[in-house]
Formats: sequence, C-alpha cells, structure tokens
Amino acid sequence: MTAPRRGRRPGAPDTRSAILDAARAGFATSGFAGTSVRSVAAAAGVDAALVHHYFGTKEDLFVAALELRLDPREAMTPVVLAGADQAGEALMRVFVAVWDDPEVSLPLRALVRGMSEPPTQQLMRDGFTQMVLGPVGLALGIDQPERRMAHVGSQLIGLVVIRYLLAVEPLASMPPDLVVATYAPVLQGFLTGPLPS
Amino acid sequence: MTAPRRGRRPGAPDTRSAILDAARAGFATSGFAGTSVRSVAAAAGVDAALVHHYFGTKEDLFVAALELRLDPREAMTPVVLAGADQAGEALMRVFVAVWDDPEVSLPLRALVRGMSEPPTQQLMRDGFTQMVLGPVGLALGIDQPERRMAHVGSQLIGLVVIRYLLAVEPLASMPPDLVVATYAPVLQGFLTGPLPS
Repeated sequence: MTAPRRGRRPGAPDTRSAILDAARAGFATSGFAGTSVRSVAAAAGVDAALVHHYFGTKEDLFVAALELRLDPREAMTPVVLAGADQAGEALMRVFVAVWDDPEVSLPLRALVRGMSEPPTQQLMRDGFTQMVLGPVGLALGIDQPERRMAHVGSQLIGLVVIRYLLAVEPLASMPPDLVVATYAPVLQGFLTGPLPS
Repeated sequence: MTAPRRGRRPGAPDTRSAILDAARAGFATSGFAGTSVRSVAAAAGVDAALVHHYFGTKEDLFVAALELRLDPREAMTPVVLAGADQAGEALMRVFVAVWDDPEVSLPLRALVRGMSEPPTQQLMRDGFTQMVLGPVGLALGIDQPERRMAHVGSQLIGLVVIRYLLAVEPLASMPPDLVVATYAPVLQGFLTGPLPS
C-alpha cells in the first residue's frame, strides 16, 4: 500500500527548497490551474528548465509541494486496476491503510487540521480533486465522474473527521476490516449505482 | 425548519455572559461529561442555583454556550417524528435546510473552521454526539444506535466539508432537493440497513 518514498536527490538543497516554497505559495494562493512552472520558477529566481529538471511536470511539482509521504497517484493504482465494479472496496482498502498508518498519514493530518485557512483549503481542494478524485473517476470510465467522485469524497473526508480527527467512538477504534466492509458498499453505490437527477 | 431564537432575557447581562464564558471554557477543556453546573458556577463566581435559573439544565447550558442559532434538539424533532424507516430523508432535509441558510449556519461554520483546535474538537465531538447523534439514535429505537449514528455523522460532516467548506463542484451548487435525494438512501442504509460485523 505504501508508495516508495522519494529519496533525497543530490545537490543544491537551497535551490530545491526555494522552488518548493515558491510552489507551495503559488498553489495555495492561485490554485493548481492558476499556477505555472514558469511562475514558480520566477518566484524562486531560477530557470523553468531547472524546475522541470528537479521535479518533473507541474503535477509532480504539486505532489512534491504537498510534502506527502506517498504519491497519491501511485496509491490509487490498485483502485483503478480493480475496475469500476470493485473500486468501492479497493478504495476503502487504500484509504484505511493510509490513514491508519500514523507515519504515512502525518502530512495528511496536518493538511486536514489546516482546513480552516483558505490557502490550505485551496491545496486540499486541488489535491483531492486533481490528484485523486479526477484521475480515478476518469480511469474507471464511470458516467458523471465529477459528481460521483465528489460523493465518494464527501464520505471519505467525513470518515477522516469522525474516525481520525475527532475520534468519535465506536468508529475511532473499529477494526480496519470492519470499516472497509461498512463503507465499501456506500462508495460502490456512489460509483456505479443509480443517481437521482 | 428554523427553531425559535432565544429572546434576550432581562437583567444582569454581565452575570449571564460570565456564566456563558465559564461554561464554554469548561466544556471545551473538560468535555460535557467532565463539566458540572456547579463547576461552571464556581468559575463564574455565582451560585449554582443562578445558573439553573438563567439557563436550565446542564444540556441547556451547553446549547447556550455553543451560541448556535437553533436548538439542535428542537431541530431534530421532525427526524424523530418521521420514525426509523423515514429518518434518512427527514435528517437530510433538516441538514440541508440548516446548512444552506447562511445565517442559521454561521455559528456552525465557525465551529467547523475551528476543528483543528482541541477545545473546539471537544465542543464538536460532544455537541454532535450528545445533542444530535445520541438522542436521535435512542429516540428512533434502532439497534446499535451509537455505531449507526456515527456512520450517519461521518457522511454528514463530510458533506459539510465538501459542499460548504471546500465548495467542491458539482456538489457545492447542487440543488438542495438533489442533495437530499442522493444522500437520504445512504443515511437510511446506515440507520436501518444490514451492518457487517
């Protein structure tokens, strides 16, 4: 379930962290769509080619700026491989594995705790929709992917709040398998069940 | 849907607000169970009888300290009257009516925005479970009321985050009736459907 950690790359740690700081500030204030590799490079006082060299695409840069301990795009692979009809359970398995792991979920918890601040809200909204909900909805080939994935997101983020943040019992200490078994059908209904219109 | 607002009561506004401040501090640091009318009275430098006179029971005092614009216990009346088999839709109707109203939901939004701070977490946890989830689960006479209502709560709080706080589309601008129609079956499943064990 754990994606490989990014190793520390050689050289120029100051330049790297200047780029990451600029990227985080840009994504937080202007959003993913309103931020370019070029604008991040300018803010960090480096050439855009250097940003690409260190971090890859704009998406890669965004993931790096979030300072997660797993790449959400890689974490979603088993969900996509499961296919639309099994994605509910696969998604719950990934979700519980990530959030029940104190180390892996640490940066995610920090993000959720900052939910009251507009910059963090922007990062959460973009991170959640751009990195997780959007690509998974598309890859699964479901109809109305944005709407269905927003419903899925509403259940998952609520589970984050109740089980992990507020620690409301009996959900807080429920065995992971029981959490999966309880919520997988709900997610599956959102993904492939009938939707009222 | 809107419960009557509490009118301003005559006399001693300083004493009233001293009691409310002490109550809020007590509930936030010691929780609902760990706070007594007596301890609030002592912190405010008044007699316990005066607290009862101004605010009623400890539950009433807790509701007053939350400074909501509706009494959650009254707001839940239509849900209880609907009965267990119809409670999913009734609960969604109350939820959307309250949260779609900017004025009524203002203090609730403030509470959710403070979710990162432990005192507010304590108020949210107790307010949610003591005032809403606990009594409704009991009144509906469902089995495993704490577990079922925690599942219900996980979906509702997630909807708060996605629709109202982060405003993720298309959920943020979805018509209220469609939100009710989409989520009522999910809540109903949590309330009266089969639960894995």
